[in-house]
Amino acid sequence: MTDLTHTPSPDHSNTVVLAHGGGGQLTDQLVAQSVLPRLTNDVLADLLDAAVVDAGPGRLALTIDGYVVQPLEFPGGDIGRLAISGTVNDLAVSGAAPAAIALGLILEEGLDRAVLDRVMDSIGRAADEAGVRVVTGDTKVVGRGQADGMYITTAGVGFVSGEPPHPGRVRAGDVLILNGPIADHGLAVMLAREMPEVRSVLRSDVAPLNRLIAKVLERTDGVRFMRDPTRSGVAGVVADLAERTGLRIVLEQEAVPLRPETNHAAEMLGLDPLEVANEGKVIIVADPAAAAEILAVLRDDPLGAGAAVVGRVEAADAPLAELHTAIGGRRIIQKPYGEQLPRIC
Amino acid sequence: MTDLTHTPSPDHSNTVVLAHGGGGQLTDQLVAQSVLPRLTNDVLADLLDAAVVDAGPGRLALTIDGYVVQPLEFPGGDIGRLAISGTVNDLAVSGAAPAAIALGLILEEGLDRAVLDRVMDSIGRAADEAGVRVVTGDTKVVGRGQADGMYITTAGVGFVSGEPPHPGRVRAGDVLILNGPIADHGLAVMLAREMPEVRSVLRSDVAPLNRLIAKVLERTDGVRFMRDPTRSGVAGVVADLAERTGLRIVLEQEAVPLRPETNHAAEMLGLDPLEVANEGKVIIVADPAAAAEILAVLRDDPLGAGAAVVGRVEAADAPLAELHTAIGGRRIIQKPYGEQLPRIC
Repeated sequence: MTDLTHTPSPDHSNTVVLAHGGGGQLTDQLVAQSVLPRLTNDVLADLLDAAVVDAGPGRLALTIDGYVVQPLEFPGGDIGRLAISGTVNDLAVSGAAPAAIALGLILEEGLDRAVLDRVMDSIGRAADEAGVRVVTGDTKVVGRGQADGMYITTAGVGFVSGEPPHPGRVRAGDVLILNGPIADHGLAVMLAREMPEVRSVLRSDVAPLNRLIAKVLERTDGVRFMRDPTRSGVAGVVADLAERTGLRIVLEQEAVPLRPETNHAAEMLGLDPLEVANEGKVIIVADPAAAAEILAVLRDDPLGAGAAVVGRVEAADAPLAELHTAIGGRRIIQKPYGEQLPRIC
Repeated sequence: MTDLTHTPSPDHSNTVVLAHGGGGQLTDQLVAQSVLPRLTNDVLADLLDAAVVDAGPGRLALTIDGYVVQPLEFPGGDIGRLAISGTVNDLAVSGAAPAAIALGLILEEGLDRAVLDRVMDSIGRAADEAGVRVVTGDTKVVGRGQADGMYITTAGVGFVSGEPPHPGRVRAGDVLILNGPIADHGLAVMLAREMPEVRSVLRSDVAPLNRLIAKVLERTDGVRFMRDPTRSGVAGVVADLAERTGLRIVLEQEAVPLRPETNHAAEMLGLDPLEVANEGKVIIVADPAAAAEILAVLRDDPLGAGAAVVGRVEAADAPLAELHTAIGGRRIIQKPYGEQLPRIC
């Protein structure tokens, strides 16, 4: 039988203890010290069972994602920035303006409070960058060896005005636009985890894209569908799009932006950059007549400076995603089978 | 360096493997086999980054909670029923009609697929019972020893019409109503975990209360505030209420419903039932003029059959929560300090 009293260990000011998750005074202390000062707003400060905020106009979009990345902090970001960006981006590609974020923490006993505080700082900064508020949250603590430092699950709500982008709106003749170089996130995390001795300039691209996407939707016409190529990468998105539309999706390898250092890391780790996760990228499928305008809006923003048309949609007898290489070769792009890179997001 | 290919082990049809979390074909299979058939609805079936649903009238309520209960299945419920009920109840006590649920799964490699399937079945049944839909979700898999079977984080959105119940509306003279006997959840889970050899009739009270609470709000007038006494129990709620209102909250021990078998289990484990988690209970603070009507509505429903007035709010110089015992004694009710019962929800 476990000890039911769970007296906090003497070092409980520096590390997370099981009792921090009990919903009692110690939970209040943890939240007051580590969470609230970093995410302050009047709705969150109420600390009620649910947060109540004004509803926006239009339909409601809801998304949820769990984050289990290792290491918790990596070049260019951390699990907190990842959680906010991922949730905001899922809403944004659905055509929704993010309205509020809910933050679920599962902490492992023994987690360094300084790490928790840095992650919370990062969540606060990413939320500011995106212009969204964390309005409610929950903290659980599990024992040593029952989590890997911390897991974060974020949910986001937003509102969609007008017809949301949807694969059903994609037509033969549409073009695929990407806002910048691929594979930086997955490779930066993998390098940090698997080869910490390698010094690389590679940094994760993790960023909230909602402001960029809102500008595209406001200033241009002709966006049919958007998706952020996270787990399973660009390959996963185009293979899935072919399947959902029944059309042929062609990617021009030469046109897909890829940094030399990222390509180098991919070769070193034996990975296909097309299958590697991105956390600050969006694939926009658009009417070709709108492509120039969309590119201009993207390139006007630091998060879209490397934007390019990378492919097109063609009529087909059967759904197919295909890569055209520089030397005229063709290969089928398949949705990756399993876990190419574990614990990458 | 870890093996980057992560070939699924031969038994991957019976247990969860790391590759099930990669966002590729194996993730699709897991979701198609274990999740979708049990939670089927047209919004979820779309499997896009965010679900889009109709917005209700009124303001938006958002809640999130992580569930880390051990064992995953316990007398009267399991982690799935707990996750749906907990999220629905957090919305309901906030005065919101639940509109949609988002389901975040973190699975440990090696989890028995049969357990996952039973938990998903249970989620489907609890959602039906509550009349809510799971409209979006996410699945991550971590390695062996990096989670404890599975963790679930659920977020819920709902809409609040009119003035939501809020501690700021509580007045001296109000009464506290409880919908039935306390401490069944926490003690059923603790007995199952710590004394699996003890055969007990004790069962968790875990249940979605949104229909019951909606009836109370529709048919009566005078609800000031509601809260579900989960982690940190009834004691946590009344201590918190005293603090938030600056008033004195008095509980009459004799009036608080408690099953003899629950009381027996609490004595055996050395626990105070007031501090033990409930997952199918609500504390309603109400205008005394409305108490009889509220009790009648509650008692008319199986989930409120044991409803009783258990205390009252009094004017005070300083916030205080107090228990009055049968023999005329008084003791201060404090918010539990830490984790009385770890991994109970």
